[in-house]
Formats: sequence, C-alpha cells, structure tokens
Amino acid sequence: MKQLSSCSREELLALKAEYSQAYADFQARELKLDMSRGKPAPEQLDLTMPMLDALTSRDCLTDATGLDCRNYGVLDGISEVKTLLAPMLGVSEEDLVICGNSSLNIMYDTMTNAFTHGVLGGTPWSKLDKVKFLCPVPGYDRHFAICEHYGIEMINIPLTESGPDMDLVERLVAEDDSIKGIWCVPQYSNPDGFSYSDETVRRFASLKTKAKDFRIFWDNAYGIHHLTDEEVRVPNILDEAKKVGNEDIVYMFASTSKISFPGSGVAMIAASQANLDSLKKTMAVRTIGYDKINMLRHVRFFKNFDGLKKHMELHKAIIAPKFNAVLDLLAQELTPLGIGSWTAPKGGYFISFNTPDGCAKRVVTLCQEAGVVLTGAGATFPNGIDPDDRNIRIAPTYPSVEELKTAVSLFCLCVKLAAVEKLLEN
Amino acid sequence: MKQLSSCSREELLALKAEYSQAYADFQARELKLDMSRGKPAPEQLDLTMPMLDALTSRDCLTDATGLDCRNYGVLDGISEVKTLLAPMLGVSEEDLVICGNSSLNIMYDTMTNAFTHGVLGGTPWSKLDKVKFLCPVPGYDRHFAICEHYGIEMINIPLTESGPDMDLVERLVAEDDSIKGIWCVPQYSNPDGFSYSDETVRRFASLKTKAKDFRIFWDNAYGIHHLTDEEVRVPNILDEAKKVGNEDIVYMFASTSKISFPGSGVAMIAASQANLDSLKKTMAVRTIGYDKINMLRHVRFFKNFDGLKKHMELHKAIIAPKFNAVLDLLAQELTPLGIGSWTAPKGGYFISFNTPDGCAKRVVTLCQEAGVVLTGAGATFPNGIDPDDRNIRIAPTYPSVEELKTAVSLFCLCVKLAAVEKLLEN
Repeated sequence: MKQLSSCSREELLALKAEYSQAYADFQARELKLDMSRGKPAPEQLDLTMPMLDALTSRDCLTDATGLDCRNYGVLDGISEVKTLLAPMLGVSEEDLVICGNSSLNIMYDTMTNAFTHGVLGGTPWSKLDKVKFLCPVPGYDRHFAICEHYGIEMINIPLTESGPDMDLVERLVAEDDSIKGIWCVPQYSNPDGFSYSDETVRRFASLKTKAKDFRIFWDNAYGIHHLTDEEVRVPNILDEAKKVGNEDIVYMFASTSKISFPGSGVAMIAASQANLDSLKKTMAVRTIGYDKINMLRHVRFFKNFDGLKKHMELHKAIIAPKFNAVLDLLAQELTPLGIGSWTAPKGGYFISFNTPDGCAKRVVTLCQEAGVVLTGAGATFPNGIDPDDRNIRIAPTYPSVEELKTAVSLFCLCVKLAAVEKLLEN
Repeated sequence: MKQLSSCSREELLALKAEYSQAYADFQARELKLDMSRGKPAPEQLDLTMPMLDALTSRDCLTDATGLDCRNYGVLDGISEVKTLLAPMLGVSEEDLVICGNSSLNIMYDTMTNAFTHGVLGGTPWSKLDKVKFLCPVPGYDRHFAICEHYGIEMINIPLTESGPDMDLVERLVAEDDSIKGIWCVPQYSNPDGFSYSDETVRRFASLKTKAKDFRIFWDNAYGIHHLTDEEVRVPNILDEAKKVGNEDIVYMFASTSKISFPGSGVAMIAASQANLDSLKKTMAVRTIGYDKINMLRHVRFFKNFDGLKKHMELHKAIIAPKFNAVLDLLAQELTPLGIGSWTAPKGGYFISFNTPDGCAKRVVTLCQEAGVVLTGAGATFPNGIDPDDRNIRIAPTYPSVEELKTAVSLFCLCVKLAAVEKLLEN
C-alpha cells in the first residue's frame, strides 16, 4: 500500500471516494458506542463485588485502635487504611491523609484553599492580579477545568516520554512569581501513558521557584495501573524533595477509583507535615470526617498492598487485551499509509493519538456522526485549544473487545478520510 | 430545701464545704465520660447494621434508570435516593441534589463558592471589604467555625421558642448590604431544641434584604429526629418562598448522619433551580459524582420515607429515656435550689442549660477536672464568647443511662458549687 503523502491528486480523489463509501456503510449500521471517558468496564467492576461482603451486619466495625468506625471521629483516616494505601504513593503513613470518594475533589479543595486562605501563610491567590499554572500537554481535561474555573492562566509545557520539558519548567518558574503551580500525572500520564524519568522527578523535587507558594499538583492516578509485565515505578517525589529540604513543594494525590469502584472508592493526599497541618485546619472546618466504614471495607477486602497489586493483575487481564486490540488495528490500518502516530502505554487508561495536523476535530466529528463518541478534540489541552488540532484521547477500557474493534475500525477510516481531505485542500 | 438566693453567707459557706466534699468524692472515682458532642450511642448504630447487608456481591447495583451505580456518572444523585429523601425536607425531587457523606461539607462548599465565585452573578464575597452573618444564639459551633474561617463578622440574634427575633432580623437585613446570610436550625435547634413557628418561616421566606446575594443557610439537621409523640413539622421554607417569588433566598441542608451512620450517610441540599444550577456548575468541576453505591445502600435498606420514619422511632426508643433521665435529675437537684434553667426538647440531640450568669466556664472546668468532658462553655456562641457566660450544651445521646446519671449528678453538683462560689463573690 502506498503512503498517502506520496499519492497523486487522482489517487487521493479515488481514495476519498472509497473511504466515503465505507463511511456511509458505517453510518448505515447505526452504531452507538461511547469511548469518551476512562471508565472501567463492567467486568472490572465485577472484580470488586466481593468487597460488598467484606462488611456485614455480623462484622465488628472497630478499627485497629478500637475506634468505632460507624460513629463520628478521626479527620485524617483510620490507621489501617493508611497502612494499606501508603505504599501506593510510597510515602510514610504520617505524610498521608485519607479522604472521601475521589481525588479530584481533594485537588479542587486544595486549589480552593490556596485561593481563599493562601499557601502556608502566603497571600490568598484570590487577592492576586494574576495566577498562572504550567500545564504539561497533552493532559487531563479536569485539571484544566479547575484552572479555568478559577480564572488561572494556563501555560502549555510540552510533555516528552521522560516527562515535561524541564528546561522550560525550570526557566519559567525561576523568573515569574505569578506561576503558582503545575499539574503532573507522573506515571502512565493521561493521555500519553508516559512516565516521568528519575531525573525528571529529581529536578521537580529540587525545583527553585520565584513564588514561595508554588506547588506541584502530583496526581498519581495510575500508580499501580500496569498494562505490561514491566511495572514502571516513578520515584516518590516527597522523599526526593525531603532530601533537598524542599518538601513543601508538592501535593501528591491518588485514589482507588480505578481499583475498587469509581465514585465509591477512597482517595488520599500526601504532603509535608507543614502542608498537611495547614490543609487539615481547613478540612476540620469543612468536615467532621470522611467515610470510615468505606475505608474499613477497603481494608477488609484488599487486606494489604499485596492484595491491591494482585487485584490490579486481574484488571490488567481484562483491559490489556483491549489496548492490544486497538494498537493492532491502528498499526494494521494506518502504518501502511504513513498517517497518524500514537503511544503504546505500559499502564494507565488511555492511548494518545495524533492525526496529521489540523485533522483531530474533523475525525472526532466524523466518528460522532457515525455513532462513536470520542473525547472531544482539544480536550487534552488547556481551554480546549490544541494548537495543532491533532491530539485525540482514546479510552479503550469500557467497550468490549468486539465493540472496540468496530469503533477503532471506524476511527481509522475517519483518520484516513480526514487525512485525504486535508491533503486535497493543499 | 432553701433557694440559694435566700441563703445567708454562713449558709452558703456551709453549702460550699458540703459541695466541695462531694466534689472531692467524685474526683476520687476517676470518671472518664465524654458528653462533648452529639454522637449517637452504639445501640443506635446497631439499628443500622442490617444496612450493610442491603448490598452484597449477589445484588444488582443498577438504579431505577438502569444506571450502573458502581461506575462513574450522575452528578446530583440517583433518582430513587431523591425519592427516599425529598420528603425529609418536604421538597420536590427536582429541587434536590444528593451529595456525599455529610451536610457540613455541603454548607462549607456553598459558603466557599459564594466567596470564590459569588452568588448568582454577584461579586465574590472574597472581593468585599466586609461580610457579615446573622447568628441566632445559642447555636451550632461548626456553623460559627465556618464564618470564623472566612473572617465573617458574626452578629448575635437572640433565639426564642418560636425562632430568631424576626423583628431584629428584618431590620438588620433591610439596612445593611454587607449582611450576606443567616444560619438557621429550624427544627429542634442546636442546642435549645426550639422549632421555628409557621410565622417565623413565612417571615424568613418573604425576607426583604438589602443584599441581593443574601442567603438563608437552613440546616434542617433534625427534621425527623423526634423525642416525643408530638412530631413537630416546620413548614417547607422553599415552598413558602416560591409562593412570594423569593425562592432564591434559601439553601436547605440535611443528612442521614444521625439516621444511618455518622460519616457514612448521605447528605443533601435543596434550593431553587437558579441556585442549584449555579452550585452544580462548581460541583461539576469539583467532582465526577458522589458515592452512588452508598446512596443505593440507603435506598435498599430504608425502602421509602415510611421506612425512615419507622427507623427514627427505634432511635427515639433508645434516646428519649436518656433525655428524660437528664431532665429528671436536673429538676430533682436544681429546681429546689432555684438555680439554672434548661430546655425540654421535643426532638434533636441536645438540652440547652443556662447556669446563673458568669458560671458556665467554671462549671465546665469543674466537670472536666472530675472526668466529665462537656462541650466547651461559649461554644454555642460566635467566636466562643457567651456574653453572659451561662450557656452549656448537654449531649445526652452517647453515654448509657447509668453513665448519664453519674455525669449529670456531677454536673448538677458543679452547678451548685459554682453558683455558691458566685454568690459568695458578691
């Protein structure tokens, strides 16, 4: 098969006609598939169903300290849930607070606290004329949405396979004290699936910032969400930062959303004692405590960190074949034509796909009009603006392998059609 | 027995010696009792244990619309939990959002949103020089703590048996646009146990405020928490406000914290569509959704509003005798001496006790030094300042009846001792 870029105008027109006919056939099938979000499949959720039996009316609901988990009390999480989850972030239990059902709301609340009360004695960000955040791109739309909600100016930072462009990060934060933070998904990043190198983590840990209240929002959403036998392990940034006396620079977040049940899991924040003390002051005004029964339910079911890891093996067995099905189809359909590029993640929930420049919106629209909903083009960039209009986030976990093959076949066809259209424009 | 106020100095000195000896005897018993918070007793929590069996691994976790409650989705609560809980506030399901594990954090978030984003297009309160709140007193310390956290100036409003002094409320809000809200516990108020009259509710519903972004924070924490057969029913303020075209003035809050499990229940906010639309915009940035499995667990266990009410009868059977034990002891020990006054609540979680002026702190200290922890004196007032130093919140629910009798005997003794000391000062 000939690469599209080598095709003559006549050949492109012929291909366009062929692709258009195939597209019409897809439309006639009246598909209805949603690949827009990183949702676990029902089979993955089935894995956690026995957790519902871990606490029954016949069980004792006291924790290791003798506390009745059914009643009020304990702001920062019961001790055994800290023991269970601390290894996920690699932190010590003292550096951890276990919260409610999602890490997104801890991130939001942490940002909110910086706006309303400032960071460790700094001016509340709401009182500043300008607040800027660095945003490695492509990235997670809900991080950007928090910034948008607070009117934060977002600065795109190119993400490489070893992490954000650290030369650029270091230069910007050293010279501009209105830059108050950066969003990071250090392991199996959303959507690229990239993991930060040891050097990147060390450079973040020792970052010198002009703003004293600069914080790294370290969203370790996929810390044990491996897809291959090569289990990537990103160094614990809090430890690295402690080594250089810079431990206040980072807030770490994680949750069991994609381990147990999304929306019914437990979430956590790890940080220096100074940061935690400050955040806990606000937490103590906001709540008497988080859901301790659900914490206990997680402990009784998973038992220990080994239990968590074994559980993730079961997730992997379900979703790795889906990723492979997508990757196989992409290679089969697009590599011969020389169009598109994509990542082959070793973990996480997404495949990041780049169309030829200027084609992403068109591809998403074409897919949608044939019944397959993808994450909106541009969603992986601040303010929804992908300057090259090329990145699309593929979320393979929710559909069945069969549905996935159909959806990705359509997707490849739409990429081809959009690419041909684009070449014909020139 | 002679009233203390009629005693001679010699008689008072004799009583002081007698009470001091009795107090020393109490101290020798090395009591360790905590009556500081409104916590349900273990026997009350036992009532809800079967809820843990309502969802097992063999159950289907889809809601009435076919939604898989185990996965992401639905911001404002599954439909059947709205059906279950709407009657608690008397609102329609459309006016309701079901949230996470506590109403305190919804109140906090609602206040926070006013500070960061303003109320329905108004200036964010963080941009204002001064924000004031009206605080009916005595009241709930956690409400006041939210105000303190935001630097809000609190204005004491006397609470009467029919609700806050409405003449004063109406006058203040009409003339001062920096007054942005009021905290209300309309039914079985904390700590007095007073319930607002129909007239009070109507006057609140039609309140004319100089500030367009004034809001009533209507914390209906004890809406079905009756202690007697006379089940007080405060009118639904949202309905009343709709009748006079003033429906944006109120946010209503409630939860199942003292119905199912504190910290592991579900909470809710009801408001006008305009208010909810605005709050949901922020919620959608903050979270993908609340814990739907726990919502479903509540629905499957309680089934319907009748189920909730029957469950509250079981709570009443456990705690009403405790309230009665306290009231009996207070009457027996203090009425003959003519010292102290207290409420006899028809519901809720507290008895409000007034010592002779200037004695509350002394009584709390005396109790503490003999091993009984009470809510701090002053806690029921903004900034912890009870101008008359007389109010003490008694929380009878947690201890057993026996423990309670011991604790209240000590309490009465401490009141007597403090009263005698005070009389001797003069």
